[in-house]
Amino acid sequence: MQLSASRFAHVQRVAKVAVELAHQYGGDVQRADVAGLVHDYAKQRPDAEFKQLIQQEKLDPLLLQANNGIWHGVVGAEIIKRELGIHDAAILNAVRRHTIGDVNMTTLDKIIFIADFIEPGRDFPGVDQARAAAAQSLDAGVSFEVVHTLEFLLSKRARIYPKTIDTYNAWAAKP
Amino acid sequence: MQLSASRFAHVQRVAKVAVELAHQYGGDVQRADVAGLVHDYAKQRPDAEFKQLIQQEKLDPLLLQANNGIWHGVVGAEIIKRELGIHDAAILNAVRRHTIGDVNMTTLDKIIFIADFIEPGRDFPGVDQARAAAAQSLDAGVSFEVVHTLEFLLSKRARIYPKTIDTYNAWAAKP
Repeated sequence: MQLSASRFAHVQRVAKVAVELAHQYGGDVQRADVAGLVHDYAKQRPDAEFKQLIQQEKLDPLLLQANNGIWHGVVGAEIIKRELGIHDAAILNAVRRHTIGDVNMTTLDKIIFIADFIEPGRDFPGVDQARAAAAQSLDAGVSFEVVHTLEFLLSKRARIYPKTIDTYNAWAAKP
Repeated sequence: MQLSASRFAHVQRVAKVAVELAHQYGGDVQRADVAGLVHDYAKQRPDAEFKQLIQQEKLDPLLLQANNGIWHGVVGAEIIKRELGIHDAAILNAVRRHTIGDVNMTTLDKIIFIADFIEPGRDFPGVDQARAAAAQSLDAGVSFEVVHTLEFLLSKRARIYPKTIDTYNAWAAKP
């Protein structure tokens, strides 16, 4: 069992929203569906497995200072490649970028980033604004999510992964 | 004339608060006074002067992407050295760190960082909490200021200088 029942229900909802966004914005529907289904594939792996992979795959050593929230995307893509045999760069990048985004994001990256945030099971202060932004444009959806996520981390005085700021600086003022 | 009349009044108030904090927390009163007076010495220089100095002094090239808010401290210290002949490392570091702080800060660094934020001429939402935190301890004052400043930048969707996050990660959960 890779994922708990509740997480599996989440990824199914993300895939559904991702497909809808792909239809709406001219994205790749097949890839949106697959990326939505696998984006959290590694979410429930132990920390030790991520740390080992960061070293084996010679990923950025700064990643060792991160946590599951970052790892399950960036390192999770390597696990998906190994275990599910998915080698499609567009899908793997969308998984890598689904937590903290990136300075440059493809349409598929944006779709998965947003779908994960606004799927109908999400219920946090601001989710309606997030849905409204995503209905306006993918860029507006990404921008809202980047700022809101940083505000949430700040409100908890939680650690912020440094790369998050590059994403923020690229997206906060858009569109 | 290096500074406008209003900015000169500000640095005088910062020096006064810095001296008070130094008395209260066992800091170096002389250095607190001098650092308070000179911390904004370079604030009104043109961008071109900062950019030239970053290259001449071989400072971190990432600084070229910053703006006056960052430059007047980090690069301003070089101008103070050249023009005022102040070579005291403790004073210059307090000037360098007064805008975005640092992961590790000396007592003098903390005093100038806080005095600049809470001097009696400051009037922004949260300044009373900042003063209360500083009355509790220097670390509480720094922690409050770091989080509040980041919240302010986020609320304006303003650019965040990447190093700010290192300071935030070091201080947000303290004390």
